[in-house]
Amino acid sequence: MNTKYEECLKMLQECLEACNTCFDACLKEENVKMMAECIRLDRECADVCAFAVQVITRNSPFTNQIIDLCADICERCAQECTKHEHEHCKRCAEACRKCAEACREVAA
Amino acid sequence: MNTKYEECLKMLQECLEACNTCFDACLKEENVKMMAECIRLDRECADVCAFAVQVITRNSPFTNQIIDLCADICERCAQECTKHEHEHCKRCAEACRKCAEACREVAA
Amino acid sequence: MNTKYEECLKMLQECLEACNTCFDACLKEENVKMMAECIRLDRECADVCAFAVQVITRNSPFTNQIIDLCADICERCAQECTKHEHEHCKRCAEACRKCAEACREVAA
Amino acid sequence: MNTKYEECLKMLQECLEACNTCFDACLKEENVKMMAECIRLDRECADVCAFAVQVITRNSPFTNQIIDLCADICERCAQECTKHEHEHCKRCAEACRKCAEACREVAA
Repeated sequence: MNTKYEECLKMLQECLEACNTCFDACLKEENVKMMAECIRLDRECADVCAFAVQVITRNSPFTNQIIDLCADICERCAQECTKHEHEHCKRCAEACRKCAEACREVAA
Repeated sequence: MNTKYEECLKMLQECLEACNTCFDACLKEENVKMMAECIRLDRECADVCAFAVQVITRNSPFTNQIIDLCADICERCAQECTKHEHEHCKRCAEACRKCAEACREVAA
Repeated sequence: MNTKYEECLKMLQECLEACNTCFDACLKEENVKMMAECIRLDRECADVCAFAVQVITRNSPFTNQIIDLCADICERCAQECTKHEHEHCKRCAEACRKCAEACREVAA
Repeated sequence: MNTKYEECLKMLQECLEACNTCFDACLKEENVKMMAECIRLDRECADVCAFAVQVITRNSPFTNQIIDLCADICERCAQECTKHEHEHCKRCAEACRKCAEACREVAA
């Protein structure tokens, strides 16, 4: 793995974890309907982060393209999570924002 | 790919599709809370089916173990979907049951 | 799932299968070294096809972006497979080209 | 995520990274043929670790089953990597062994 991706890889792992934690927590909330878009985007974001972790670590020739896509999805997930007051949403929004930044920086 | 897995592969593809269709439809239902466990299991089931499709087609030495795990998850998803009256849940339950059977048969 | 993706979904499933069949067969060839880039791209292509199958069937808001990325990777895999005379490489190149076309058409 | 999985999650991330690093490096070796089984198992192991990371972090009801499967695959990958003298294989074998242990412990 190219060492320039190290920080990005760490952010992707944290973002994946925050998104899946938020996914699980949203499904247990009283008002699940309000969280529907959050649940959908948490899955999108966790899955693309998992994909990005794989491509970075195997030194894929498509790494930068996938990281760029990942940044888009992280940003959308952050936007949605920011609308909610739950602690898991706030943590997820923060992790998504940091991950998007790390992805943009390294893919530039 | 070993031809003995052909029917199983087809059932896995149909199950993956039915689970993801159900996931998407559940998130759009009026009563999302009632569908929370269904949403969770749809994701579990679609993901393990996707994994099984990969291992079968690459002739993985762990194919039978993964197909067996897949059958367990399909059965649990079928049980949950059977509780609901939505057309997407009924179709999903049916696809999960058929997939579980195909997996059991080929992993035996 | 939006019905406009039906043909594309079928091509993705066939491409995933052809790539993984080629991956497995390349690893069993006498001259594995010559196949190294093919093995690498088969994995890249199978994995992005698997990802695309998931996003299409769950009606992801990022479907078109991911299908577009998938077309890029399919084209690169087709280019590599075309260099080799093995039957599995020819079949893979053909499946990748068809998949890339189907992806471009639907993402346009 | 259940905190009892924290150490296991870390080992899974390190194992995934070591397996994909080994996969990439094996494909660049002079004698690729000798590494064919290593390349195959590196992919198997990285993919099941990625799957396990997803299920742990989303609090899947199938976590222990998947972690147990993951331990089997890690052990097989460690066995294969141990046969080779390359630094990337030694590091991979070590990461696989540690991961298998962490998985067994938590799934028990």
